[in-house]
Amino acid sequence: MALRLLPEGRIAEIVPGGTFLSALRSVGVHVPSACAGNGRCGQCRIRFPENAPPAMAEETELLSQAAIDAGWRLACRQIVTEATTLALPENVHAAQGKTVTGDITTCCPWAKRRTVPLPPPAGDRSLVERLEQALGARLHTPAAVLARLPGCPEDEPQVTASTVGRHLVQLECGSVREGPFGLALDLGTSTVAAYLLELEGGTEIGSRAAQNQQAAFGADILSRIAYAQQGSDSSRQELRAAAQTTVNELIEALLGEADLKAEHVVQAVVVGNPTMLHLLVGANVASLGQAPFAPLWQRWLTLKAVDLGLTLNPAARVALLPSISGYVGADVVAGLLACGVHETERPTLYLDLGTNGEIVLACSTHMVACSAAAGPAFEAVGISCGMPALEGAVDHVEIDHEVHCSTIGGDEPRGLCGTGLTDAVAELLRNGILDPSGRMTPPGGELTAHVEGEGNERRFMLTRGRHPVYVSQADVRKLQLAKAALRSAVEVLLEEAGITAQELHNVHLAGAFGAQMKPESLVRIGLLPEALADRVQAAGNAAGQGAKAVLADVRQARAARRLARRVAYLELASHSGFARRYVQAMHFPKQQEVQV
Amino acid sequence: MALRLLPEGRIAEIVPGGTFLSALRSVGVHVPSACAGNGRCGQCRIRFPENAPPAMAEETELLSQAAIDAGWRLACRQIVTEATTLALPENVHAAQGKTVTGDITTCCPWAKRRTVPLPPPAGDRSLVERLEQALGARLHTPAAVLARLPGCPEDEPQVTASTVGRHLVQLECGSVREGPFGLALDLGTSTVAAYLLELEGGTEIGSRAAQNQQAAFGADILSRIAYAQQGSDSSRQELRAAAQTTVNELIEALLGEADLKAEHVVQAVVVGNPTMLHLLVGANVASLGQAPFAPLWQRWLTLKAVDLGLTLNPAARVALLPSISGYVGADVVAGLLACGVHETERPTLYLDLGTNGEIVLACSTHMVACSAAAGPAFEAVGISCGMPALEGAVDHVEIDHEVHCSTIGGDEPRGLCGTGLTDAVAELLRNGILDPSGRMTPPGGELTAHVEGEGNERRFMLTRGRHPVYVSQADVRKLQLAKAALRSAVEVLLEEAGITAQELHNVHLAGAFGAQMKPESLVRIGLLPEALADRVQAAGNAAGQGAKAVLADVRQARAARRLARRVAYLELASHSGFARRYVQAMHFPKQQEVQV
Repeated sequence: MALRLLPEGRIAEIVPGGTFLSALRSVGVHVPSACAGNGRCGQCRIRFPENAPPAMAEETELLSQAAIDAGWRLACRQIVTEATTLALPENVHAAQGKTVTGDITTCCPWAKRRTVPLPPPAGDRSLVERLEQALGARLHTPAAVLARLPGCPEDEPQVTASTVGRHLVQLECGSVREGPFGLALDLGTSTVAAYLLELEGGTEIGSRAAQNQQAAFGADILSRIAYAQQGSDSSRQELRAAAQTTVNELIEALLGEADLKAEHVVQAVVVGNPTMLHLLVGANVASLGQAPFAPLWQRWLTLKAVDLGLTLNPAARVALLPSISGYVGADVVAGLLACGVHETERPTLYLDLGTNGEIVLACSTHMVACSAAAGPAFEAVGISCGMPALEGAVDHVEIDHEVHCSTIGGDEPRGLCGTGLTDAVAELLRNGILDPSGRMTPPGGELTAHVEGEGNERRFMLTRGRHPVYVSQADVRKLQLAKAALRSAVEVLLEEAGITAQELHNVHLAGAFGAQMKPESLVRIGLLPEALADRVQAAGNAAGQGAKAVLADVRQARAARRLARRVAYLELASHSGFARRYVQAMHFPKQQEVQV
Repeated sequence: MALRLLPEGRIAEIVPGGTFLSALRSVGVHVPSACAGNGRCGQCRIRFPENAPPAMAEETELLSQAAIDAGWRLACRQIVTEATTLALPENVHAAQGKTVTGDITTCCPWAKRRTVPLPPPAGDRSLVERLEQALGARLHTPAAVLARLPGCPEDEPQVTASTVGRHLVQLECGSVREGPFGLALDLGTSTVAAYLLELEGGTEIGSRAAQNQQAAFGADILSRIAYAQQGSDSSRQELRAAAQTTVNELIEALLGEADLKAEHVVQAVVVGNPTMLHLLVGANVASLGQAPFAPLWQRWLTLKAVDLGLTLNPAARVALLPSISGYVGADVVAGLLACGVHETERPTLYLDLGTNGEIVLACSTHMVACSAAAGPAFEAVGISCGMPALEGAVDHVEIDHEVHCSTIGGDEPRGLCGTGLTDAVAELLRNGILDPSGRMTPPGGELTAHVEGEGNERRFMLTRGRHPVYVSQADVRKLQLAKAALRSAVEVLLEEAGITAQELHNVHLAGAFGAQMKPESLVRIGLLPEALADRVQAAGNAAGQGAKAVLADVRQARAARRLARRVAYLELASHSGFARRYVQAMHFPKQQEVQV
């Protein structure tokens, strides 16, 4: 059934009967949904330009009457029954819609599943030779495949071979209809996201995310590296096992939902920063912990699932995408690919504000990347009331004569996530409660009662419920350092490219943070130049989208390889202008001058 | 120090200080030694044409005075002190000497070890890229290597890379002098032999053999296959584990003797029959247990040690040599290579009388192989007093008016090994105690007292010591069936090639059995045509020798690949003339007509 997606007009083929949320996801369009499709967060808004279906109870509760009148509904509540036209919210269309373009529907998968009649046994010719004759191709058959070749009875008329490129991954007796299936994996320092795809059609059939269980060994990359170097190899093995367990639990859940077996998954693509990929392989990360932060390897690597301890088909071909440098990893390569940064000639900025900040400036055919040690403030790690972007987290703040907080899922506030912290600081600046140096001062008037304590203990109370949520002076300092690192990196890249912020055509903001962030808050805190406020596009989990594109399309894989080679790396620490710009960027902008 | 080996005149470079037995072994010349070099068996005879050293006590005991006067000594007793000239016994020179030719001393190894200075880190270039620049080659780096790459300190001036072909197997900090090392493995149904080689010089530094622990699951191939198919995959895994344990124990012993670590062994070559190789990989052997006995694969296969569960360097490149058919395996390919059968244009016969009998006839450039289900009688398995060829086994028998038995190691007789059984039957035939139909009858005269019992229980007592050793009527029947299978196979191959036995130039008899067998006994029992009695050459462990040659020399590897493709396979069971010839071959020759 055809779904027309406005404003691009792309036609997507979907299966009726499910929700629009899952139907859109199946064609690679990811509408945000903090409550995981349970009708509680109100984020998954889509608009029916005509013939909007009747509003459900949750929709009248979560959407304004004006929105409902305009045709807005929730994608998780409405069921697909007939061909229709949909308008996607701007952030979804512009960024996440990009990742699918036409490629996934007209995909060119590496993995193929063919049912063929086996030629009759002539003499005692081997099974592999007979199969090669049937397929008309010479195959690579690793030990893991040979150990699992079936002893098909000679009267079995046909076999089904699953291949990835020229590698035989699985051979089954008889005709097998399903598959082949593949896994795209975004192995983040904090969060691991996994996507299960049917590879022939490039259809996503499930996705899951979980906290990286390595978090028990340190929140950021440097503490993981430090842990890995403790004692003998055993701490490295602990980190490796934690990553494997995280991924294997996601795989188990995805396979359970889809009622598939591990052996059906014949291919995987993994992205992540170099440290995460090194630890997954079990490699020494010592060189990533000290200047010049060199990885052991950085190009494309193809392994077998069994080599990585992943519970897929043991012979599944697992590609680890290439990195750009020791701190600009395969996740950035995948994100650039997903956002099409390599295809545009217009000056474009790509920012991934994860635990580490990675920034890429593309200008004509030249791309330069750098890594800013921003710390995890934008993930609210190390912040007094910080918490992940889960239900109950304050995600948006507005302050006028009183304080308005919204939380994910609409629950009672439990803490502050990255967007909430950024919003709060932006609003404190706008209201003069923070001065450009970042010092918190009681404002006078109605808001005075919100300020408590003194010095670094001084704090601004956002809510006073069962779990009081506040921003402390120390929290402000952490955000200030983080934004200074990122802003000065942006300035250095612009300077190197010889362009101004005004000349940038697009700013892709990757990561969950980017999807929820109000661009004006980023401008208010000075992370981005004012000129960019109207050019910010949320790229969502661009890394995961890129991994999926590579998994489903061999042309995207080639593009990723070329892209990684094209991006130059700029080492900020050794750049002459960086330190000066960093100091300059430490102050917040004077709010009277900010026009957003 | 130079050793000149007569009659070929080959010059071998050896290290003084050890015994001639080990010095000869180090250059690939294997002088038989049943007592493992302990001066007890008297087998390791070598001759000093001039300046023979004084005879030691064991030599005067084990060698005749005439032999000592002629310059014969025991290789295990005499110590190498100076350059000298040696004459090897004819069987050693002609067959085992062949396997080394000049190739191992002028070898062309796959494995290389290079110590190079690492180029200084430019920016954050990866270690693998810097290494590739230093080596001037692009390398394959599997997960097992990446997981073990060292975190060399930046002030380390050089690294040592061990490569096999274009595969990086190990990287160590600093300069490493030793190695690279490799393992050649002959994985027999009954016996597993392992050889440790230093690969740069092609020098053997140790060898070990042990019983295949799979024997607990059945003595012959078919019973192993039957066991593997019991229940679920677990019995296959048991067989796999038994093979792995056997090999890993040999590896541990060899490494211990040589004071090396597992990671130093970067390459291995494995030969064996297809069932053994399938079970080592963990593959399904069902198709090998039923007509048309097709293997799952039969060509050259390269794996990593970690894939096979072998305790070498996990990334060690392990080559499984190609097979010719489901029952003519990589061991035969290696044996043909070792005997140089592929290099001669003269009609040549190759026989491997292991648990199964494999026979290859080479005639001009054409080679045809077949497999004869001879059963394990020639290994004395299933024989009343049968035992392996270990100390105490009766290995040679002569009967005139009384019975003369020799045993391995000269110990008190404990049982009968394959050569002893064959000799005994040949002598019983010569003395008329067995008639051409194989029936045992009391001869009259002095030997009558040796015959006891009636019918199938009738037996001929060879010795009456603490462990009486005898040949029963049933034992004779088993040997009769085995030799009939082999002889009829030889006849079919000769007929197909259109030549007579008289035209054969050479008969290579592989295996431990072949090395000890008296050719005249083989002719007396009718296993070989009379014309061949003077053309039999013991090939020793030709399969192991071939595996070593492939391990040490990439040219031999190419030759093995070509050879496997050149050999055609003849299925005896479906050959029109086989059944008739089998029945004909059942009778023993009339001894009056045998001239040997």
